[in-house]
Amino acid sequence: MNVMKVETADLTNAMRALGRAARTAATQLAMTDGATKDNALRAMAAELRLRGADILAANAADMSEAKAKGLGAALLDRLMLDAKRVEAMAKGLEEIAEQRDPISRVLSEWDRPNGLKIARISVPLGVIGIIYESRPNVTADAGGLCLKSGNAAILRGGSESARSSAVIVECLQAGLRAADLPIEAIQTVPTTDRAAVGILLSMHDLIDVIVPRGGKGLNERVAAESRIPVIMHLEGNCHTYVDGDADFEKARTITVNAKMRRTGVCGATETLLVDRRVTALIPTLIDDLIKAGCEVRGDDAFQAADSRVKPANDADWDTEYLDAIIAARVVDGVGEAIEHINRHGSKHTEAIITENPSAADRFLREIDAGILIWNASTQFADGAEFGMGAEIGISTGKLHARGPVGCEQLTSYKYLVRGTGQVRP
Amino acid sequence: MNVMKVETADLTNAMRALGRAARTAATQLAMTDGATKDNALRAMAAELRLRGADILAANAADMSEAKAKGLGAALLDRLMLDAKRVEAMAKGLEEIAEQRDPISRVLSEWDRPNGLKIARISVPLGVIGIIYESRPNVTADAGGLCLKSGNAAILRGGSESARSSAVIVECLQAGLRAADLPIEAIQTVPTTDRAAVGILLSMHDLIDVIVPRGGKGLNERVAAESRIPVIMHLEGNCHTYVDGDADFEKARTITVNAKMRRTGVCGATETLLVDRRVTALIPTLIDDLIKAGCEVRGDDAFQAADSRVKPANDADWDTEYLDAIIAARVVDGVGEAIEHINRHGSKHTEAIITENPSAADRFLREIDAGILIWNASTQFADGAEFGMGAEIGISTGKLHARGPVGCEQLTSYKYLVRGTGQVRP
Repeated sequence: MNVMKVETADLTNAMRALGRAARTAATQLAMTDGATKDNALRAMAAELRLRGADILAANAADMSEAKAKGLGAALLDRLMLDAKRVEAMAKGLEEIAEQRDPISRVLSEWDRPNGLKIARISVPLGVIGIIYESRPNVTADAGGLCLKSGNAAILRGGSESARSSAVIVECLQAGLRAADLPIEAIQTVPTTDRAAVGILLSMHDLIDVIVPRGGKGLNERVAAESRIPVIMHLEGNCHTYVDGDADFEKARTITVNAKMRRTGVCGATETLLVDRRVTALIPTLIDDLIKAGCEVRGDDAFQAADSRVKPANDADWDTEYLDAIIAARVVDGVGEAIEHINRHGSKHTEAIITENPSAADRFLREIDAGILIWNASTQFADGAEFGMGAEIGISTGKLHARGPVGCEQLTSYKYLVRGTGQVRP
Repeated sequence: MNVMKVETADLTNAMRALGRAARTAATQLAMTDGATKDNALRAMAAELRLRGADILAANAADMSEAKAKGLGAALLDRLMLDAKRVEAMAKGLEEIAEQRDPISRVLSEWDRPNGLKIARISVPLGVIGIIYESRPNVTADAGGLCLKSGNAAILRGGSESARSSAVIVECLQAGLRAADLPIEAIQTVPTTDRAAVGILLSMHDLIDVIVPRGGKGLNERVAAESRIPVIMHLEGNCHTYVDGDADFEKARTITVNAKMRRTGVCGATETLLVDRRVTALIPTLIDDLIKAGCEVRGDDAFQAADSRVKPANDADWDTEYLDAIIAARVVDGVGEAIEHINRHGSKHTEAIITENPSAADRFLREIDAGILIWNASTQFADGAEFGMGAEIGISTGKLHARGPVGCEQLTSYKYLVRGTGQVRP
């Protein structure tokens, strides 16, 4: 018991030292010009390529431990790195370097009748704590985005990817060193002890924002424990609605892509809604999905259309499968589609397939979600696909950032007021 | 005991009914055009003028109860309404109506190489819960700002101002009715029971954002209890720094105004910092302040300059007096001023008085605060003074809104993605 207490105190001290070092680095980063940050990002990319073999060796060790522990195929796929994925990490950092500097931009400026000149300029958030699960590439993306936006990062990856992430962070810190920036700008929590997360969430004097990037359990823990503001990445219970005025070929290709391109991403469609006016399309849609390897759980109309369809129950409408399963039902036009989505959706990404602009406008206007898509796949919900270079997650909250969180979303602002001696009457 | 439980359950039910009604109203408000909202705002202003006598009578009852309870002079001043203050409320609503509609604005738009057209458009936050203390005019400002930004408001004012606020809300609801908008767009918590605040903070499915506008106790309670995102209005421990290159007359008038114009506002200066190069100015600065009725608590240099100066202790540098007291010390130039402010300030509003542009630039760049002022009074920290029409508070947080929170800060955004059948490779 006594020993445990000492260990916890030691861990708290270690974590707070990490936080203080991050705060000091953040102060320096806030003053760093864009070119220096971009040099660091390019040096990081070069180092990742140079140490590709080390990264793959560390990842192989992570993978064999994960297999021994019996991790599922989806998790193993997230954890696995190969030469292509290492190159993608390096390229991602170079793409972040190509983005414009999000800091010290004049967001707006105006003069007041009393002569005061007011400007709103972008500034970094400060220190960002990022808690994520198995994917080691998040280490590079998150570190790179935080640096670009002038923030210090404290990364807490999953224990499964600890070895891989450690080598990746060495590469990131080598890039910082090459640009004469403090290596404390990107740090990792030096233990896989789960208590470290609790300590992190309590460090509201040293951390400005927490970004949880994981499953429900992590999100609930963060919501319950953190007194630090959070940019929340919640589940994506996304819908594709095939309207009565849909182009049938678009509906077919988009539906299969939205569900099956990758089933484990948050922008994957989980529920298919079909307008009652085009129930004739249902057998083909079902057949396409089943041929692509998808289980279909449908309402009465879907079950009647194809005997391979399983019955959907109430819980299906609220489930983010992240798997090759889709819930499907008929609705009475765009109105009922909107109603269904506003009730069951998670405010992430919703798509309508239609050639009718007024139905599309209504869908885009009346649904409360971060991303609304007309005639394209929900799988485009992604910072890189939006042209942001990379993302740290997709925000399902309404405060601060919504949708893909790229480097511009990791900034705050301050007002500069320039006077000539004005006092307030 | 049993009775208490029943009461709590009743209160919870009543609060949740309030929340559901607000949610329904918010859905309608989100679709309401700007002209209709502005008509409602002008009708509210007209109703406030029409019912001025009722408001003053209700306020007189609030005031006499507050006096009987022994409330302090500063609180009584905040609570007190007169014809001029009622007119100011009405005028404030008309000024909010004059602002451009913050909703459905295209914030940015761009095309992707694959032909997807992406637009980011402003949307309301949804339902906003506002918890504030004695000032009844907050009722009109907050209700008006929420309406303008398409949000439903649940207002929870201080028990001292309950009668005044009730009549003001009747006026606001009359304005909503005149514009055919649901009166549930602006509701008040129907009890002064403190348990209602706890229930409000727990309604994360029905309320999107909490705005606490009160003292430390309220802020701490909200931080501890709320799982709803918060736009935090914390204390304003603001500084005025007189640089070695200051214009002496500007320094004198600004210092007295920044401290003494109104001592109870969050933008009032609480600490005066003077550059060691201009210690010769200190006796005059002290004399100005004391003549204006201010107590000066100084370091050794200030005490040596004037025998009326009391010694400042460590706690003074961290204190928001909200009173006719100022802490004062000498610093070694702009560098030490920045260091002092970044250690002791509350990230609210900080001012430098100097004719030296590079000292000003450094001060404005290196201090982490919502508002940085050069050669003007910190008392300009105010949404109306910024040209925002009104404000719901001054945010000292970094997420979402920083500085004055006007109607534009009460919005979120969503992405609209328009395609022609694109699927993701």
